[in-house]
Amino acid sequence: MVTSRDVAAAAGVSQATVSRVLAGGARVTDATATRVRAAMSAVGYTPNLAARTMKTGRSGTIGVVVADITNPFYPEMLDALGVALAAAGQRMILWTESGPGESSAAEAIRGRLVDGVVFTTATRRSSTVRAALDRDLPVVLVNRGLPRVRCDQVTSDNVGGGAAVAEFLVAHGHRRIGLITGPPHPSTAVDRERGFRRALQAAGVGAPLVRAGDFSHATAWRAARELLTEAHPPTAIFGVNDLTAFGALDAARSLRRRVPTDVSIVGYDDVAMAAWESFDLTTVRQPTGEMAALAVDLLLGRIADPARSPVRRRFRTDLIVRGSTR
Amino acid sequence: MVTSRDVAAAAGVSQATVSRVLAGGARVTDATATRVRAAMSAVGYTPNLAARTMKTGRSGTIGVVVADITNPFYPEMLDALGVALAAAGQRMILWTESGPGESSAAEAIRGRLVDGVVFTTATRRSSTVRAALDRDLPVVLVNRGLPRVRCDQVTSDNVGGGAAVAEFLVAHGHRRIGLITGPPHPSTAVDRERGFRRALQAAGVGAPLVRAGDFSHATAWRAARELLTEAHPPTAIFGVNDLTAFGALDAARSLRRRVPTDVSIVGYDDVAMAAWESFDLTTVRQPTGEMAALAVDLLLGRIADPARSPVRRRFRTDLIVRGSTR
Repeated sequence: MVTSRDVAAAAGVSQATVSRVLAGGARVTDATATRVRAAMSAVGYTPNLAARTMKTGRSGTIGVVVADITNPFYPEMLDALGVALAAAGQRMILWTESGPGESSAAEAIRGRLVDGVVFTTATRRSSTVRAALDRDLPVVLVNRGLPRVRCDQVTSDNVGGGAAVAEFLVAHGHRRIGLITGPPHPSTAVDRERGFRRALQAAGVGAPLVRAGDFSHATAWRAARELLTEAHPPTAIFGVNDLTAFGALDAARSLRRRVPTDVSIVGYDDVAMAAWESFDLTTVRQPTGEMAALAVDLLLGRIADPARSPVRRRFRTDLIVRGSTR
Repeated sequence: MVTSRDVAAAAGVSQATVSRVLAGGARVTDATATRVRAAMSAVGYTPNLAARTMKTGRSGTIGVVVADITNPFYPEMLDALGVALAAAGQRMILWTESGPGESSAAEAIRGRLVDGVVFTTATRRSSTVRAALDRDLPVVLVNRGLPRVRCDQVTSDNVGGGAAVAEFLVAHGHRRIGLITGPPHPSTAVDRERGFRRALQAAGVGAPLVRAGDFSHATAWRAARELLTEAHPPTAIFGVNDLTAFGALDAARSLRRRVPTDVSIVGYDDVAMAAWESFDLTTVRQPTGEMAALAVDLLLGRIADPARSPVRRRFRTDLIVRGSTR
C-alpha cells in the first residue's frame, strides 16, 4: 500500500510537509503544495480522510450552513465564502436546512466532521448554533447576528440601512409609505424594520402601512397587492430584502401600476438581479465579499486560538439609487 | 463514556438497530428511528462519524456536485435533491465548483468521505466524475448526461425541448429567428441547440442568427443587443436557458423594444422566476422534482448493488407558453 512516506520521498519533502498539505493548512507555500500534490498523483496515493480526521483531529474542512438557497442573496454569499475558504486552503461543505428530516449539519457537528462552522442564517431558534458552541466547535456567524450569543459575528449595519431607506423616501416627498416586513426571527429583518420605523418617526412621518412578509416573492406579491389596492395606497413601499421588493414590483405590474410614477419600490441586499433592467431596483448594498472574507479569517483564527475573545464586526451599508424610486 | 450499547438499552432495541439508524439506512421504521434518536439525546450519546465511517465503510452521506449555484436552476434542483435524500434518511453535503483551488469534491471522493455522488453539472471535462468512477464510487448524473460514460444518468429530452421551441415559433409565423447558445460542453446546451436547429431546418426556415452565450445573464444581454441592433433584427430569440432569456429580455428593455410586440423571447428550464410578471417567460419545463427523486433512487440502488447495469432515463419536457411570445 502506498503511504504518505512514499509521497514525501517522491516530492523530496518531509512526511510532516505532506501531512500539512493534506490538512489544507496555510503554512505551506503554493509551490510546495503543488509539488506534493503532483507526487501524490504520480505514486497513486489516496489519503483516507476519515483515518486522517481520526488521527490529527483536523479535517481541513469547514461547514457552511444556509437556510434557503433559492433566495438569490445566499448563492452570492456562498460564492464569496467559497472563494475565501479556497484561498485559505480549506475545503467547504455546505448544508442546507430547507429539507425535512434531521439536520445534516447537526449530525456532522455532533460527529465533528468539520473543524468549524460558518452560519449564514442563524436565528434564536437555530439549535445547531447552540449544538456547535456546546461542543466547543469554532463558529462564526455572518450576515445574521445573535446579540446574546458569545461567538465571532460579522454583520452589516441593518439598522442604519433601514434608516437610510426611510430618510431617502421622506427626502423625496413620500409621506404615505408601505413596509413589507420579513419573518420574525432573523436579526436582519428585525434590525432593518427597526431602523426604518425609527427614522420615519424621527422625520415626523409616523408609522408605515405594514404587511407581514417572509422574505419570499409569493408572500410579498400578495402583501403588495393588498397595499396597492387600499383606498389610499402608499406612494412608496420598502421590502426588507430584494426578493420582497421583486414581489412588490411584480404586484405593481400585475395591477398595471407604473414604477416609479405611481409607486416607488425599495429593496435590501443589492443582489446581482437588482441591477437588471427588469427590476432596476433602488436597494441597500451590503459588502458581501468583505463580510465573507472576514468571517473566514475569524473562523480560522478561532480554530488556531480557541480562547481568543469573541469579535463582533459590523460593516457599513450603502443605498444604491436606481430607477424604481423617485 | 456513553456508547451505542447504552443507547440500545435506553431505546429497548438491539445495538444493530442503533447502528442502522446511525447509518441512515431505510430498513428502520420511522417510529423506531425516532425512539433511537430520543434515546441518544437522553443518554447524551455523540456518534463519532469519522470512527463510524472507518468501521462500517458507510458514512450515510451523499455528495452533490454543482458548478454554478448563482444560476437559479441549480438551487431548485438542489432543493429537490435535498428533499429526496432526506426522505431516504441520507445526509447531503454539497460541493460547488465555482471557487478556485483544488476541488473539494475531488478530495472527498478520493478520501471516500461519502457513499456516493450526484453530479448535476457534469461535462466531458469533469475530472471528478472520472475520479469517482475509477474508484468504484457509486455515481449518478442528473440534468446533464455523458453519452460515452457507463453510469446511471437521468436527463430530460433536451433535443425534443429545443425542437418544440422551433416548431412553436415557426407555427406563429416567425421566420427570422435568433439563437443564443450555451457553453460548448454541457449536454443540455448542445442537445437543445441541436433539436432547435434540426426542427428549423425540417420546417424549411433555414439557419438561425446565432450568438454565443455561456448560460449567464451578462453575456446573453450583450448577445441579444447585437441581434436586436442588426439591420434586419430577428422577430424571435431563443435562449438555451432561462438566465439567457432573462438577459435577452433585459437587452430588449434597454433598447426600448417591446416584448412580444417587437420581439418574442423563449427560454428553457422554467425556473420559478420565469412565471413572475417581470419576465412572464415562455419556456420549456423539465420535471426537476421527478428527476431528482429518480436520481436519488438510482444512486441508493447502486450503493446496494454495485454490479447492476447502468440505467439511463430521459424525461419528457413541456413547452410552457406565457406572455413573452406571440
